[in-house]
Amino acid sequence: MSDAKIRLYVDHPLGQGQSVPLSREQAHYLFGVMRLSVGAAVLLFNGVDGEWRAEVAEAGKRGGTLVCAARTRPVQMPPDLWLMFAPIKKARTDFIVEKAAEMGARRILPVQTEFTNAGRVQRDRLQAHAVEAAEQCGGTYVPEVADMQRLDRALTGLGDRRLMFCDEALAGAEDTSALPDTPGPWAILIGPEGGFSDKERARLHRMDTAHAVQLGPRILRADTAAVAALTVWQQRLGDW
Amino acid sequence: MSDAKIRLYVDHPLGQGQSVPLSREQAHYLFGVMRLSVGAAVLLFNGVDGEWRAEVAEAGKRGGTLVCAARTRPVQMPPDLWLMFAPIKKARTDFIVEKAAEMGARRILPVQTEFTNAGRVQRDRLQAHAVEAAEQCGGTYVPEVADMQRLDRALTGLGDRRLMFCDEALAGAEDTSALPDTPGPWAILIGPEGGFSDKERARLHRMDTAHAVQLGPRILRADTAAVAALTVWQQRLGDW
Repeated sequence: MSDAKIRLYVDHPLGQGQSVPLSREQAHYLFGVMRLSVGAAVLLFNGVDGEWRAEVAEAGKRGGTLVCAARTRPVQMPPDLWLMFAPIKKARTDFIVEKAAEMGARRILPVQTEFTNAGRVQRDRLQAHAVEAAEQCGGTYVPEVADMQRLDRALTGLGDRRLMFCDEALAGAEDTSALPDTPGPWAILIGPEGGFSDKERARLHRMDTAHAVQLGPRILRADTAAVAALTVWQQRLGDW
Repeated sequence: MSDAKIRLYVDHPLGQGQSVPLSREQAHYLFGVMRLSVGAAVLLFNGVDGEWRAEVAEAGKRGGTLVCAARTRPVQMPPDLWLMFAPIKKARTDFIVEKAAEMGARRILPVQTEFTNAGRVQRDRLQAHAVEAAEQCGGTYVPEVADMQRLDRALTGLGDRRLMFCDEALAGAEDTSALPDTPGPWAILIGPEGGFSDKERARLHRMDTAHAVQLGPRILRADTAAVAALTVWQQRLGDW
């Protein structure tokens, strides 16, 4: 049996001897595209039970079964960090979701600001991007992509969670080194490409839990700012 | 005269009263696409003379002339940082170049490692991406995209320049906080998706000027690693 090189996210419990049924799409991928046959090894994870080495027990065109042989890694939860962002063009929105999953965010929240152009996001498509990124980056956890909600509701939903927000146009933004080393739940908010409205900005400044930061002297696109902000946070407060 | 909203890179000297001829493509963009007419304002930069507010003096289908009215900003050079990376899929390579320009690298060097798949890069196309990114991000400088060269030659070309390199598979990689605060010229090297060869790795480890760093517990794609590494460097040693 060769080493398992394929990693697959499954929405099914994993454990010693556990059978895992495959969807039609998964069977097509494993047996049609990747040409695996009975006995081949695959790495499975479900975001909860860690990573398992499983073997193909049944292989068919419309389905199949894997059986878990041994746990190869425990689940590694990312820090309790949410990434909130205002959706932009499709490719760059996909990119933000992929990067958030790779870099270790626990939850991804598209938010609608007053100047957000994208009227709607396809949550299922974005969730699939997060799954694919986790499969590729060796993650054992998949961040949940939430439904888009209005920024004011999303901010209320933060409760006591601390917020690091990035807005190029924001006067009084601190150097990232001024970010408090406070552990516990955090969120990052990436401003929309059109900027925050005066009302949104005023609310963010009134929040005791919110910290404005600047990310250098050049104006970063929203997708760049997302990766940079995740890096800053992970280095200071996360698991890097 | 409304505020100038369009920023354009031109390969021409800029100064008080200076006339700037437009190429056919630039004329098409300004007059055909953006519908500017005589008297309209545009911001120009050439990477050397800062940013200038210019006005349309002549507008034609195949060309035109702008005249510089006033300098709006001095040139802001990014730190003396080179980004070296092994080209990957086209879209992700374009992305790395765009991000390097946005985040403030001075020079971008595609390098061919033993496990690099991309045989060739279109330097002109990548340079155009760097220009577009500078136009969009408000930069006054455009990093030069070098021709692709073999990694061993590129490493020799570093001379005394310090090198921060990222390789997930590399044993003994330091936490980024262990990176020396040494000012002066630096380069970042992003490892290829297939990893470095043993020979390449041995050479990197023999270099007194090279520092291996790790970017968290998950495996980052090369394009993610590029943005994360640029963030780490800019925060510690750059102009953020």
